[in-house]
Amino acid sequence: MSQSLRVNATSEPYADLPPMCVALLEAKAKKGATFDQIAKAIGRDEVWVAAMFYGQAKLSDEELAKLSHFLEIPHDSLAAELGANWWPRRGLGPMPPTDPVLYRLYEGVLVYGNAIKAVIHEKFGDGIMSMIDCKVNIERKPDPKGDRVLLIFDGKFLPYLKW
Amino acid sequence: MSQSLRVNATSEPYADLPPMCVALLEAKAKKGATFDQIAKAIGRDEVWVAAMFYGQAKLSDEELAKLSHFLEIPHDSLAAELGANWWPRRGLGPMPPTDPVLYRLYEGVLVYGNAIKAVIHEKFGDGIMSMIDCKVNIERKPDPKGDRVLLIFDGKFLPYLKW
Amino acid sequence: MSQSLRVNATSEPYADLPPMCVALLEAKAKKGATFDQIAKAIGRDEVWVAAMFYGQAKLSDEELAKLSHFLEIPHDSLAAELGANWWPRRGLGPMPPTDPVLYRLYEGVLVYGNAIKAVIHEKFGDGIMSMIDCKVNIERKPDPKGDRVLLIFDGKFLPYLKW
Amino acid sequence: MSQSLRVNATSEPYADLPPMCVALLEAKAKKGATFDQIAKAIGRDEVWVAAMFYGQAKLSDEELAKLSHFLEIPHDSLAAELGANWWPRRGLGPMPPTDPVLYRLYEGVLVYGNAIKAVIHEKFGDGIMSMIDCKVNIERKPDPKGDRVLLIFDGKFLPYLKW
Amino acid sequence: MSQSLRVNATSEPYADLPPMCVALLEAKAKKGATFDQIAKAIGRDEVWVAAMFYGQAKLSDEELAKLSHFLEIPHDSLAAELGANWWPRRGLGPMPPTDPVLYRLYEGVLVYGNAIKAVIHEKFGDGIMSMIDCKVNIERKPDPKGDRVLLIFDGKFLPYLKW
Amino acid sequence: MSQSLRVNATSEPYADLPPMCVALLEAKAKKGATFDQIAKAIGRDEVWVAAMFYGQAKLSDEELAKLSHFLEIPHDSLAAELGANWWPRRGLGPMPPTDPVLYRLYEGVLVYGNAIKAVIHEKFGDGIMSMIDCKVNIERKPDPKGDRVLLIFDGKFLPYLKW
Amino acid sequence: MSQSLRVNATSEPYADLPPMCVALLEAKAKKGATFDQIAKAIGRDEVWVAAMFYGQAKLSDEELAKLSHFLEIPHDSLAAELGANWWPRRGLGPMPPTDPVLYRLYEGVLVYGNAIKAVIHEKFGDGIMSMIDCKVNIERKPDPKGDRVLLIFDGKFLPYLKW
Amino acid sequence: MSQSLRVNATSEPYADLPPMCVALLEAKAKKGATFDQIAKAIGRDEVWVAAMFYGQAKLSDEELAKLSHFLEIPHDSLAAELGANWWPRRGLGPMPPTDPVLYRLYEGVLVYGNAIKAVIHEKFGDGIMSMIDCKVNIERKPDPKGDRVLLIFDGKFLPYLKW
Amino acid sequence: MSQSLRVNATSEPYADLPPMCVALLEAKAKKGATFDQIAKAIGRDEVWVAAMFYGQAKLSDEELAKLSHFLEIPHDSLAAELGANWWPRRGLGPMPPTDPVLYRLYEGVLVYGNAIKAVIHEKFGDGIMSMIDCKVNIERKPDPKGDRVLLIFDGKFLPYLKW
Amino acid sequence: MSQSLRVNATSEPYADLPPMCVALLEAKAKKGATFDQIAKAIGRDEVWVAAMFYGQAKLSDEELAKLSHFLEIPHDSLAAELGANWWPRRGLGPMPPTDPVLYRLYEGVLVYGNAIKAVIHEKFGDGIMSMIDCKVNIERKPDPKGDRVLLIFDGKFLPYLKW
Repeated sequence: MSQSLRVNATSEPYADLPPMCVALLEAKAKKGATFDQIAKAIGRDEVWVAAMFYGQAKLSDEELAKLSHFLEIPHDSLAAELGANWWPRRGLGPMPPTDPVLYRLYEGVLVYGNAIKAVIHEKFGDGIMSMIDCKVNIERKPDPKGDRVLLIFDGKFLPYLKW
Repeated sequence: MSQSLRVNATSEPYADLPPMCVALLEAKAKKGATFDQIAKAIGRDEVWVAAMFYGQAKLSDEELAKLSHFLEIPHDSLAAELGANWWPRRGLGPMPPTDPVLYRLYEGVLVYGNAIKAVIHEKFGDGIMSMIDCKVNIERKPDPKGDRVLLIFDGKFLPYLKW
Repeated sequence: MSQSLRVNATSEPYADLPPMCVALLEAKAKKGATFDQIAKAIGRDEVWVAAMFYGQAKLSDEELAKLSHFLEIPHDSLAAELGANWWPRRGLGPMPPTDPVLYRLYEGVLVYGNAIKAVIHEKFGDGIMSMIDCKVNIERKPDPKGDRVLLIFDGKFLPYLKW
Repeated sequence: MSQSLRVNATSEPYADLPPMCVALLEAKAKKGATFDQIAKAIGRDEVWVAAMFYGQAKLSDEELAKLSHFLEIPHDSLAAELGANWWPRRGLGPMPPTDPVLYRLYEGVLVYGNAIKAVIHEKFGDGIMSMIDCKVNIERKPDPKGDRVLLIFDGKFLPYLKW
Repeated sequence: MSQSLRVNATSEPYADLPPMCVALLEAKAKKGATFDQIAKAIGRDEVWVAAMFYGQAKLSDEELAKLSHFLEIPHDSLAAELGANWWPRRGLGPMPPTDPVLYRLYEGVLVYGNAIKAVIHEKFGDGIMSMIDCKVNIERKPDPKGDRVLLIFDGKFLPYLKW
Repeated sequence: MSQSLRVNATSEPYADLPPMCVALLEAKAKKGATFDQIAKAIGRDEVWVAAMFYGQAKLSDEELAKLSHFLEIPHDSLAAELGANWWPRRGLGPMPPTDPVLYRLYEGVLVYGNAIKAVIHEKFGDGIMSMIDCKVNIERKPDPKGDRVLLIFDGKFLPYLKW
Repeated sequence: MSQSLRVNATSEPYADLPPMCVALLEAKAKKGATFDQIAKAIGRDEVWVAAMFYGQAKLSDEELAKLSHFLEIPHDSLAAELGANWWPRRGLGPMPPTDPVLYRLYEGVLVYGNAIKAVIHEKFGDGIMSMIDCKVNIERKPDPKGDRVLLIFDGKFLPYLKW
Repeated sequence: MSQSLRVNATSEPYADLPPMCVALLEAKAKKGATFDQIAKAIGRDEVWVAAMFYGQAKLSDEELAKLSHFLEIPHDSLAAELGANWWPRRGLGPMPPTDPVLYRLYEGVLVYGNAIKAVIHEKFGDGIMSMIDCKVNIERKPDPKGDRVLLIFDGKFLPYLKW
Repeated sequence: MSQSLRVNATSEPYADLPPMCVALLEAKAKKGATFDQIAKAIGRDEVWVAAMFYGQAKLSDEELAKLSHFLEIPHDSLAAELGANWWPRRGLGPMPPTDPVLYRLYEGVLVYGNAIKAVIHEKFGDGIMSMIDCKVNIERKPDPKGDRVLLIFDGKFLPYLKW
Repeated sequence: MSQSLRVNATSEPYADLPPMCVALLEAKAKKGATFDQIAKAIGRDEVWVAAMFYGQAKLSDEELAKLSHFLEIPHDSLAAELGANWWPRRGLGPMPPTDPVLYRLYEGVLVYGNAIKAVIHEKFGDGIMSMIDCKVNIERKPDPKGDRVLLIFDGKFLPYLKW
């Protein structure tokens, strides 16, 4: 599905991201590559790569070089904007999300949050599931009644420190 | 860990729930039962049961009878508050959540939401992961560096209708 | 499905409604009546009746008498709370709604609002669809792929006055 | 009513949409076409087309080609901004809406939301009316006391999954 | 239209008012008196009296005595709650108002506010229309196409002090 | 008071209006005309004209031609931005207003809103004062203690439809 | 002006204060004392005393004893609620204030805040006026055109520490 | 301390002010003048002048001419932006203020607002301190323990009109 | 400083805590014990103990027994409310805090947050300081110019997981 | 780690800062200097320097000269933007922070704020920890289980003035 893409760089959420993020999305479209193909090229998972495309993760020097090569983006430009001296400012609003895809995730917290908290405490004790030491995966699960999205958070349990 | 529990029924989130929800939590503590044990007794999953304890799911008549029996709560009281004529008012605030366990889930949306949206569109097209036709599961994944929480949303993909 | 119902009158949205609203819901459950049956008994539509149960519409003296008779609620109590001297305080929060049923309606405004505005202007000119001189109806439309909800707003077009 | 239109592209809601959306509105004005005429040209309904003009729906390749032809907009530009690699970011604020046309829809949720929820539950059980598998139609209903707007949401009922 | 009225004193806006406000409304209903009749009895205007019933204006000792006499409310109770030692806490939320009657006034500010500001400046210079030295009147203006509400604010112009 | 005016077009509220609105204000200043003089030239009232200058009302073709002539603004430019294909997006924030002139109007709703609602219901029954079928007028009322602003809303009463 | 006062203790701002605050206001009214008379009795200023009546300042043991004596409130009750083990939770909402007296102060910050900041920096350098080491006084200044309120904040300048 | 100053005109609060405000601040810095020196040159007080620099006050023609002369800013430019046809849009956000100097003023309202209201009512009756007919002064009060800021609001008392 | 304390249990923040929290504070006052003395009695730090008094930390069974003994509170009551079956709902609003002590901490984030983030990244790389695996200590540091508060957060650095 | 950095100057938080702040960050990256090295060059601490890079602190003339020299930025440009005539507008939103590093600090206030307040009052009496006369330090504390961040606020205690 290689084809061009032109993003309104001054619209949300792009306006608050390094301009390189728009360039990455446009390069990906031009190449017709999926997140998974890019992920394989740099040795990461597709969701992590997508997060990085939205300025939510930080490339190592090596990953940056591979990405530059794969998407044919000049290494210097990429390094200047997303390299060693850049740190992600994470969190992309608005909240509550207006987009229905995002809102459903938010609704998951709203409706099942207390249940999740109760079960985590019951199974692990007083603490949290880390969102820092956490992997996020998405899988397509075939189903005759309509395929399903498996969205998996795999986060370390962190017990509350007492002092 | 059978032991008593006394909940402040006028505090959040209990103040906006049927009083029976507090009674359920107290009965569970008295019995020393886990959500999983209750779930097995009524033929459901532990997270779904926990959600129901917080007024976020609706029991069938049969499930209600089993729950009444298992937790030794009078069937009439249970049916009057959570039975056929009651419908859940879903969604328990505040948002953003102040509790760190809940906040981490919210942060998951804030940080990884756009990446999840991008990957869902790439894999499924224009549509959403349903939060209605959706199961939520929590598993404990042993890990020598600290056990991990697997939080899994398994929701049907719903393509956008065009007309 | 006649059965008892006990509502937490100090929870939302009941806390901000006349206590009679809770009594109406409980009487309806006790009688096992549908909104449509009540509507027929007082000569109104089911959605209007449901709105009145939530304090969003005002009964005439005649309707009040019929309602009192049908639900076996003392006329004096009903008249004192919802009679001639009472005026609805319309609008039941919170907004954005946390309940998914309500949120989907809100999402309809968020996603299709501008399109609806554009088509109304194209078809009618500068003005609005009245939400005062407006009927709301809900119909069940059978469909082999899953029955559908028809939600119909039938509101008078009001052109903007110029002066 | 063919005539020119010049939109302030940096004002809301255009600032957060692909620039092509402004071009579509200006091309429509230049051609003097109605949403319905455009809809017929691409094989869709007028409200869906209006939604697409505000970045809330996604064209197929075939629809895009027809739209390009009908409005005489270069295919490449249209495809680059609204084509295969673009996904709608749905939801156009602010909420509550300040425009009276939009606000009346919002007021519909505020005033009749609980009634609609109650009737849906009574008729369908525990679940929601989908806003994804949903059509929206607007019809002009002549009335001697002033014509009326029929606004119809036709959405699939989705029962809550239990697990 | 003499008839009883029973107000939910713990609902908004009554919960944040002196309990006497509810008593006043109930006494008014019992007597079947209009705001205008009460106003004449104490020598004030009907809108001012209505404002006072909602805790937004302060009675003089003489007015309080007349009100006590007219509505047959014990003078001591009235004086203890609304007398010399009580000062109004003005302003009754929520904002934006959810009730359509109140919202239309709010919409008046939203839509015509800048125009009103521009005309006031043009006619009076730099300053404001006082909302303290201000009378509010409501008149019914008969009209064959439907009677009209005349809502009149008559406020002193206050020029900005320069120093 | 003919004199030049230069408005910061990217500041609020101008940023969200058609650029022509700034041009109108600057042309008015250059001509030294009052809103009333413009109103007479196009056959409307001064407050309506001021509202139109802030993008809150829609000109007919004839009014647009007269305005173009009176303010010496090219007809084509005016028609492209505010003509037949343009529809007002009404409502200019922020709310609560920060400007004291606007805030006093808002305070009028906050302090006298419930009183106004109560008196409207008493005089007219269940319904609202329309803000669509509504005229707004401002008059200067001489007063030896300081001239007064008469701000008059003349809106049709709309009874709530029952169905 | 000795007279009784009965405060709605569950209304704002009293609901979030120690119940003794209501008792203090009622005792003050009963005694017919002004804040200034109480201030003299305990050796403080009237504004400080008023602040303490609203839970915004802390009495020393000696002041508490004098207050108990002057207002004839049992020393033990006073000490239990406002004594050594109690610490003020300062700040009484809502913000923006809805009451016009409070709002005008807020408007002072909104309109003159930047000017005050600019002049403080010019006269004192980089730092702030302390609101902790600060006295607040109110004086009545006679004026033939209407008496004036002198509201004086006398706060220590605190230069920003550099390290 | 004559020196250059370059302000980011698109940052807050400058973005919502006439561009001339930035020019005034830069001209003041270039000249090395204090607000007091400018005030003396145009016959006003320093706080008023600072307020005018932030678009919160309106110059007379004569003051404008003097300001133009003193700061060596072309009269025409100044008149076009801040002259007879310009009216202040007062109020500069955000609220609550994030800057500590402004926040302390806001905190003054939050902590001492109710006390100030109570004392004003006790001394003056039912009414407000005007923020329109109000002077604001700042004085430096020497103190061996650290100099103090005297911030004085001198506003006319406005009694509530009754009608 | 042994003395009684009576807390308004329905005021914030107590209303949303287990009632036992109020009992703990009252028992502490009665005993005249400091947080440090209680901390020593149960083998924890004073800040952790204070956090637990506000429902923000969870006691082990052993700590609960010691606390019960030290403060002479019946073990059963304590265990029922704060024991094994209770889990903290952390986070006590409002935000921004209105109390000046809390606001200064909030201001620390507002003013120094970005600097802290920048230095953490520079010293540790991409990750966060854990607020779960974190100790908080407060020390009094004597200083001739006024004693100082040392507030120390000692939190584990958590690097962002990549996957 | 000398390397280039290119910051999106129109994204947050840079958009509301003097453009020089971006230049400082880019110069720092180019030089490959740490905040600590810059701090040593101008005689300040690294956190203070980082705060200054984000527009939250004010350089003296001497510090400015040293900074200009060390980072090879023209003195005039630096002085014009951050010199004597510039005053910090402190506070960089949004709040609650969306970035996890900042949010954890905010969570510290949310979870431990009341405990910190309670201990400060117990140890120091009625007053606050100053955030103006306050140093902030960050140290890396080695730990075999993962190094720790020591974040230290060292602020003067300010007792509440009574008057």
